[in-house]
Amino acid sequence: MSLAIISPGKNVQPWIEVLKNLDSTLKIQVYPEIEAPEEVEAVMLWNHPSGILSNFPNLKLISSMGAGVDHILRDDSVPKDIPVVRIVDEKLTWSMTNYVIMGVLNFHRQITRYQKDQKRKVWDMSNPEIDVKVGVMGVGALGGDVLDKLSYMGFPVAGFGFSEKSNFPHPYYSKDKLKDFLGAVNVLVCLLPLTPDTENILDIELFSKCTPGTFLINVARGKHLVEEDVIKALNEGFLSGALLDVYRKEPLPKDHFFWEEDRIQLTPHIASVTNPQAAAPQVIENIQRIRSNQPLKNLVIRERGY
Amino acid sequence: MSLAIISPGKNVQPWIEVLKNLDSTLKIQVYPEIEAPEEVEAVMLWNHPSGILSNFPNLKLISSMGAGVDHILRDDSVPKDIPVVRIVDEKLTWSMTNYVIMGVLNFHRQITRYQKDQKRKVWDMSNPEIDVKVGVMGVGALGGDVLDKLSYMGFPVAGFGFSEKSNFPHPYYSKDKLKDFLGAVNVLVCLLPLTPDTENILDIELFSKCTPGTFLINVARGKHLVEEDVIKALNEGFLSGALLDVYRKEPLPKDHFFWEEDRIQLTPHIASVTNPQAAAPQVIENIQRIRSNQPLKNLVIRERGY
Repeated sequence: MSLAIISPGKNVQPWIEVLKNLDSTLKIQVYPEIEAPEEVEAVMLWNHPSGILSNFPNLKLISSMGAGVDHILRDDSVPKDIPVVRIVDEKLTWSMTNYVIMGVLNFHRQITRYQKDQKRKVWDMSNPEIDVKVGVMGVGALGGDVLDKLSYMGFPVAGFGFSEKSNFPHPYYSKDKLKDFLGAVNVLVCLLPLTPDTENILDIELFSKCTPGTFLINVARGKHLVEEDVIKALNEGFLSGALLDVYRKEPLPKDHFFWEEDRIQLTPHIASVTNPQAAAPQVIENIQRIRSNQPLKNLVIRERGY
Repeated sequence: MSLAIISPGKNVQPWIEVLKNLDSTLKIQVYPEIEAPEEVEAVMLWNHPSGILSNFPNLKLISSMGAGVDHILRDDSVPKDIPVVRIVDEKLTWSMTNYVIMGVLNFHRQITRYQKDQKRKVWDMSNPEIDVKVGVMGVGALGGDVLDKLSYMGFPVAGFGFSEKSNFPHPYYSKDKLKDFLGAVNVLVCLLPLTPDTENILDIELFSKCTPGTFLINVARGKHLVEEDVIKALNEGFLSGALLDVYRKEPLPKDHFFWEEDRIQLTPHIASVTNPQAAAPQVIENIQRIRSNQPLKNLVIRERGY
């Protein structure tokens, strides 16, 4: 049994250390130095070269190195009969929620307004708060935690997702109620998985249904967002600002129009970073489960896309 | 029975409307147009002219128009035998907590770093989080709520106060443990009441005992802080930044050195503003209680100063 890590351009040393600590007998091979592909029974993937999995005739388990699996499912050559699992990491959830709450509070308490006032030496105490109602698209482990925490803090919230849900602990709008959802909130957080249904969902058509002046926070995937449409929506007043962490192309190209747009605040895909310390035990556990023929944890349902 | 509102320079119309709605029989006189001082049995004060209360021979109740009472107790001519009450306003608490959490998260997730990176078109994903442990000085209604919420969000917290406390739900350091408290945290939030004990407490001597690089948030009173000492502490590395909402002189004078200090973020005393809608019922209730000789709500203990 051998585990292959295929994550070009990423420093995987922290992963190797944690995995070895947990299971010193585990043989780990790191792409591109994979000398015994026939021994590989499990792979950990992050942005792997398309088609590479055909090199491993004895593959039994595919694990994403993060919460998302769009980078795996978009590769048509990934065998359909091999289970795909993903990481559900409390630390990742914690970081993501903190980032989103930071974005919500900075809009609610108008931090950029006061930064501008400070530069101009203006003392203006009027209207110190913008009333917010926070809508979260995607109500899985991440979106659910954002809704729970903001609700505990006393903010009105609502969730949106593609499936019907009963007994959801917050106001919830399903697919055909998107327009109602958008009209009911003025902060829009995207935490959807990236699937064919959700790609390009954040476009001018959606923005035009938003409460005027909505603040957008995208922490899911760059491909959820039609980037030119944010500017149009800002110009039309559908949006009043945005906090973006993910982009169609990363690193964000130097000549991208986002950099100089002062209505948009950018961060370099750091809202939440999978932490090997928390994630590696899940990989090891799933390897043990596949060996002993037990049900896998955080199994991806391909038809659903996450 | 008449209520006098003494709050020079403040628009008290919203207060009058809410008070009248609650008790249409209440006679309200507003300083400086107080025509029947002998009828005044209750006063609401915010930065009243020192000595003014000697005009009211039948005064029975003094109410602050906010959470703080330092503006009342510093006037030696305020009769010692007349009870002073203050406002404990959930909306005020809510706003204060949101402001503090915003400050904590902006430090934790380094928002100003990413703002600078955006200006320079720099994509730097390294070290996206600063580990924080949040210390709150002052653990009353406001400080307690900040501790509860941050703790619920998963941040390590500690409280500091002048009195001994048993069964406090968070780690707590009393007066003689200040040094241990400061060494145990790296975000320092001041929510102390302003008393002779706490005036100028945030000085270079205190800062020198802080964990190096501590981030300071002062949302209490300007007089807690020796303003020149913040700059010294930043230069020495005791502090790495500050978010300030209150100042020794407000509005902050145009020539104050804070305006141009980019390690300090300023807001114009808007962290929390008493909301007449929430506060007026407390004033009315205390007037009714004093009439019927019942115990007052939110009574200030003068020796303690809050």
